[in-house]
Amino acid sequence: MTAAPAIPKGLEGVVAAETEMSFIDGQKGILEYVGIPIGELSANSNFEEVVFLLWNKRLPTKNELESFTRELRNNYDIPGALLKRIFELPKDAQPMHVLRTMISLLALYDPNPNANDVASAREKALRILASAPVIVANFDRHRRGEAPIHPDDSLGFAANFLYMLNGERPTPTMERAFDVCMILHADHGLNNSTFTARVIISTLSDVYSALTGAVGSLRGPLHGGANEGVMEMLGKIPSLDAVESFVMDKLAKKDRIMGFGHRVYKTTDPRATDLQKLAKQLAADTGNTPLYEKSTKIEEIMEREVGAKGIHPNVDFYSATTYHCIGLKLDLFTPMFALSRISGWSGHMLEQLADNRLYRPTVRYVGPHNQPYTPIDQR
Amino acid sequence: MTAAPAIPKGLEGVVAAETEMSFIDGQKGILEYVGIPIGELSANSNFEEVVFLLWNKRLPTKNELESFTRELRNNYDIPGALLKRIFELPKDAQPMHVLRTMISLLALYDPNPNANDVASAREKALRILASAPVIVANFDRHRRGEAPIHPDDSLGFAANFLYMLNGERPTPTMERAFDVCMILHADHGLNNSTFTARVIISTLSDVYSALTGAVGSLRGPLHGGANEGVMEMLGKIPSLDAVESFVMDKLAKKDRIMGFGHRVYKTTDPRATDLQKLAKQLAADTGNTPLYEKSTKIEEIMEREVGAKGIHPNVDFYSATTYHCIGLKLDLFTPMFALSRISGWSGHMLEQLADNRLYRPTVRYVGPHNQPYTPIDQR
Repeated sequence: MTAAPAIPKGLEGVVAAETEMSFIDGQKGILEYVGIPIGELSANSNFEEVVFLLWNKRLPTKNELESFTRELRNNYDIPGALLKRIFELPKDAQPMHVLRTMISLLALYDPNPNANDVASAREKALRILASAPVIVANFDRHRRGEAPIHPDDSLGFAANFLYMLNGERPTPTMERAFDVCMILHADHGLNNSTFTARVIISTLSDVYSALTGAVGSLRGPLHGGANEGVMEMLGKIPSLDAVESFVMDKLAKKDRIMGFGHRVYKTTDPRATDLQKLAKQLAADTGNTPLYEKSTKIEEIMEREVGAKGIHPNVDFYSATTYHCIGLKLDLFTPMFALSRISGWSGHMLEQLADNRLYRPTVRYVGPHNQPYTPIDQR
Repeated sequence: MTAAPAIPKGLEGVVAAETEMSFIDGQKGILEYVGIPIGELSANSNFEEVVFLLWNKRLPTKNELESFTRELRNNYDIPGALLKRIFELPKDAQPMHVLRTMISLLALYDPNPNANDVASAREKALRILASAPVIVANFDRHRRGEAPIHPDDSLGFAANFLYMLNGERPTPTMERAFDVCMILHADHGLNNSTFTARVIISTLSDVYSALTGAVGSLRGPLHGGANEGVMEMLGKIPSLDAVESFVMDKLAKKDRIMGFGHRVYKTTDPRATDLQKLAKQLAADTGNTPLYEKSTKIEEIMEREVGAKGIHPNVDFYSATTYHCIGLKLDLFTPMFALSRISGWSGHMLEQLADNRLYRPTVRYVGPHNQPYTPIDQR
C-alpha cells in the first residue's frame, strides 16, 4: 500500500472556475464587483444596478438601467396557481424549505423550463429573482393569517419586498438599509451555494434545478444559515454587562462565536464594515441601540482575544442586527440572503453556460476489493 | 501579468472525497460496490440488499435484510396532503421537475426536517427513497387521468413501483429486470449529482436540500438525461438497414452518438454488459427484438469505427431498450435513474456527514480591478 496523497478537504485552495464578477482579497479585506470596490457600490448604487453590473460586467447607462428595472418589475408577479399553493402549505414550515420548493415548482409553470441558451437562462434567472420576494413575503403572510398580496410594480426590489411583507410602504431609511443589504450579499466568489449552482448547471440541466439546489445549500448553518445563529446568540445575552462573561465562557469552552471568522477573510470582512454603519443608524432609528451595543461589545472582546488569529466579524454578524431592526423574523434572515444571492448564483450560472465543462471530480475509494457475494444463509 | 496556471476544468482528476461504496476501474471496466463486483450483485442480489450494502458497507444477515426491507416498506406511503398536491400539478409538467419539487416539498411535512445527525439523516434518506416511486407513479397516473394509488407494502421496491404505475402487479421477468436496473444505477463514484449532494450537505444543510439538488443535477442531458437521448435516437432510425448510414452520417458530422463514451470508462461500462443481456431477454419477451437489434447494430458499427479510441457503450445505451420494453414512457427514463441513485446519493451524504468539511473551492478572478463608480449621467 502506498501512502494516500493529501486531499485538500473541502477543495480548499482548488481553483474550480473563472469569473469576471467578484474579486476578494481576504488578506487585505477587499471585495470588488467587476472591479468596483463594494463600499463604492453600497454608498452610491442600488440593487438593480448591481445585478445589471454582475450580469453584464459593466455599469448600465440610464436607459439600460430603466429598461432592466422595468423588465424585473414586469416579472414581479407569480402564477396564480403558485400563489394558491403557497397558501396551502403547512404554516409551521421553515421559509428556506418553502423558498426552495416554490422555486422548484415555478419550473412547472414555465412552458419551456429547460432552455438554457444564455438568453433564455438569463430570462429565467430574472424571473426567479423577481418572484422570490413574492414567495417569501406571501408565505410569511400566510402563516400570520394575512391575505395574499400582489407586488407593487411602481416600487423597486427592496421597497416592494418590504411593502409585500408588511402591507405598507417602508420608510426611506428602511428601504435604503434593505437595499444595501441586497447589494452586499449579491455575490461572493465561489462560496458553497454558488459552487452548487455551477455544478448543477454543468450537466446542462436548467436554471430552476441550479437555483433550487443553491437555496438548499445556503440554508446550511455553515453557510447562509449563520446569520440566524448570530441573532439567536444575541438573544441569549441578557444585557450589555453580561457580554464579557458570555464571550469569555464560550471561548474557554472552545465554542464557536457566531458571526466571526471566514474561510476567505483573514481581516475584517469589508461587508461587515458597511453593515456596521447601517446597523448603528437603524438601531438608533428603531430603538434597538442596546442590541447594537451588545454587538459592538462582542466585537471588541473578540478583537482583544482572537483578533490576532485572524478571526474578525463576517457579513453575518451585523446583518443580524440590521435585519432585526428592519423588523424581520429570525427565520427570514437566511431567505433575505437568498433573495439577493440569486443574482450572484445566476451570474455564475451564465458564466458556466458560456464556457461549460461537466463537473465530475474523482473520489478515492478506501474500501476492500474483490469481495465474494456470500449467499444470505451463509452470512 | 503572469500566465494563469492550468485549471483542471470540471475538476477532472481532482480527488474531492473518500468513499467506501463504489470502486471504478475505468481502464479495466470494473465496478464494485463495497468490493463486490457489480455482475455478482446483479446476478444474485436485489435492490434492497444493495442499499443495505452501500449504507452499511457489508451484506446484511437474513434478519437484518428482513428488518431493513420492512422499514423501507413502512415508509412507502406519502402524506395525504402531498398526494393531493401531485394531483393539482400541471399535467404537462416534466417528471424530473415534479420529482425535484415533491422531494423538496416532503421536507414541509417532516416535523424536524433539518436533523442531520447520522441516524436522523439515514431515516430521512430512507423515507425519500421509499417515497420517490409513489411520487413518480402517481404523477404519471395524474397526467393520464387515472386515480391516485397507494403503494402495496407486500411488494418489494421494484414490484411496488411497477404495480403503482400500471395498476397491476408486474410479471416476474419485468420485476427482475427493473430490480436489476435499480441495482446497476445505485452508485457510481463521484458523478455530478452525487457530488452535488455532498457539496450541499457539507454546509450542514439537510437531507431534503441535498437530494433535491441531486435530482436537479441528474436531469441534465450530460448526466442522467442521456438515457432519454438514446431512446430518441433509436426512434429516429426507421429500420435495421438504416442504422449503418445513420451512424456513419453522425460520425462524419462529428455529432454525438447518444449512449457512447464516458468520462470514466475507457473500455465497456460493466453495467452495459449486464444491461445488454437483460435488454435482449426483455425485448424477446415483449416483441421488441427489432429495437434490440438496432442497438446491437449501432454498437457493432461504433466498435468498428471508434472502439479503438476508447468509445464504448455506457449504462445509458442499453437501459434505454430495457426501460422501453418495461413499458416506460420516455420522460420516465431519467426518473428511474433517480429512484435508484437516491440510495447512492444518500450513502455519500452519510459519509460526508461522518467526516465533514465545507466545500468551498476558489475561483480565479479574470476581470478588471479598482474601477471607479462613474455616476450614471456620466456613462
